Amino acid sequence: MAKTKLIPEHLRIDSEKVSQKLAAFIQNSVKSSKTKGVIIGLSGGLDSSTVLALAATTFPPHKILGLIMPERDSSLDSESDAKLIAKITGIKYDRVELTPILDKMGIYQHIPKVIFSQKNLAGAAVMGGYKLYTKLTGERPFLSGLKGTNFGLIKRTNAYYRMKHRLRRTILYSYAERENLLVMGTINKTEYLTGFFVRYGDNAADIMPLINLYKTQVWLLAKFLRIPDKIINKAPSPDLIPGITDEFAIGISYEKLDLILSELSRNETIQDIATISNTKPKTIEYVKELVKRSEYMRIMPYIPSD
Amino acid sequence: MAKTKLIPEHLRIDSEKVSQKLAAFIQNSVKSSKTKGVIIGLSGGLDSSTVLALAATTFPPHKILGLIMPERDSSLDSESDAKLIAKITGIKYDRVELTPILDKMGIYQHIPKVIFSQKNLAGAAVMGGYKLYTKLTGERPFLSGLKGTNFGLIKRTNAYYRMKHRLRRTILYSYAERENLLVMGTINKTEYLTGFFVRYGDNAADIMPLINLYKTQVWLLAKFLRIPDKIINKAPSPDLIPGITDEFAIGISYEKLDLILSELSRNETIQDIATISNTKPKTIEYVKELVKRSEYMRIMPYIPSD
Repeated sequence: MAKTKLIPEHLRIDSEKVSQKLAAFIQNSVKSSKTKGVIIGLSGGLDSSTVLALAATTFPPHKILGLIMPERDSSLDSESDAKLIAKITGIKYDRVELTPILDKMGIYQHIPKVIFSQKNLAGAAVMGGYKLYTKLTGERPFLSGLKGTNFGLIKRTNAYYRMKHRLRRTILYSYAERENLLVMGTINKTEYLTGFFVRYGDNAADIMPLINLYKTQVWLLAKFLRIPDKIINKAPSPDLIPGITDEFAIGISYEKLDLILSELSRNETIQDIATISNTKPKTIEYVKELVKRSEYMRIMPYIPSD
Repeated sequence: MAKTKLIPEHLRIDSEKVSQKLAAFIQNSVKSSKTKGVIIGLSGGLDSSTVLALAATTFPPHKILGLIMPERDSSLDSESDAKLIAKITGIKYDRVELTPILDKMGIYQHIPKVIFSQKNLAGAAVMGGYKLYTKLTGERPFLSGLKGTNFGLIKRTNAYYRMKHRLRRTILYSYAERENLLVMGTINKTEYLTGFFVRYGDNAADIMPLINLYKTQVWLLAKFLRIPDKIINKAPSPDLIPGITDEFAIGISYEKLDLILSELSRNETIQDIATISNTKPKTIEYVKELVKRSEYMRIMPYIPSD
């Protein structure tokens, strides 16, 4: 696991203790909500696999339902990895194909279909646009997209990928309500602090077990929970636009990002963090700006003072 | 306006002052979010009409977009009232018919279509079931539905009506993101405190201007803003299941409910509130229980302690 080599000492966790604590949290949440068990959307990625594995340490398989919700642009790996973790934990899962629904919602018309006929082409096109935008504006599209923007392509892309997550939550909740299950979310601390989630999309959940763990700590926990290496080692991706990985969108590796975020939370200076993380001060400023601009996503919604 | 006759002195508001304050709140929110204007889902009801009218006091019409999203079970009045308030404020609106999308999502199969072929029949059936359930369990379905329940009809009904609201937010946000607009929510203090909203449905918004106003205070504000009497005087309804009004679902009039809620917030005793509001102590307990059981809906989502 080369990925966790760079994790600094103070971000290491006692995986066994953390696992037990989070399993108890999930168990207690089900009890107090008077639900029968839990439900989770399975993307085949690290976070949802880890949350599922945590639940599986405290519930028998029949108390856990997985939902696999692929759509036109999903990677084929996502579905097979989701099925793999469902099989390992022995849970039941259902599959809802989102393409016909998204089609009826008119979403696909906003990004020409021809781009997606060849997935590599889509990735290349988006990546090219991403780099060009960054060069022209001096700001990464992900950062620009966190607040209002009048740049057409960013607006359309935001609407395009966010709708998928929101539709997934709508379907997940309809299952949860029909079966009396608690919805488990999968957002980790890194995503939460940087705004790397969809507001009212994947942050819409009943419980959020990973919220206090940085992404690199989720890696450690996943390893402890024996998540297959295939899932741990693949490049984390929101799987919303072909070829776009988390680290490409954010523009910085998770090891570095977590180190910077944790140092920022300890109120270290930009210069000190730059030295500790062997990063340009400009990058630290960028991470600080991600946290600042995404603040509204953690307070929802804004209300007038009384 | 017979409806506001019973509002006690201490719940009266200075409508002009409140209107100015809330308009400034909306204006400032747009500025700080760098959006171009606001968007709102228009149901033809009091709350959305009032929020629209507030926005219209501070923005020219072209900075406001309304979205009318009817579906199979919507009352015909809802759409004509939504169009009426759009016309009065001079704003543009778009119409998205939800029925084909909800159909693809498989929601309608959960409540037999024949029930909805005649709207009065649907209302009568749901009302009959509602009363029967209350009689058998000693608890209103609305209260039971706030937490996990294994009662089949409540589970199905919850999934049925909540999906509609969540789909509306998904569509509203896709418009908002494409047009760079701020999403205005319409939840008032009475709904918020009693859990009379759909979590990640109508509470999913960027700003929530009415959150500090009880429903009866929204009536006062609406009158000041010259909302047509037709809209002010019709029975408030979520318009999700034909015939089911707010007051039927909650089981208590808004005047009484607001009085009880405000007395509870002043820490009056059950017995004192019963006397002041001329209500049975059992009803006060019921309102207290609504507030208690809906607490999780105001904290979202639950997270483990650090």
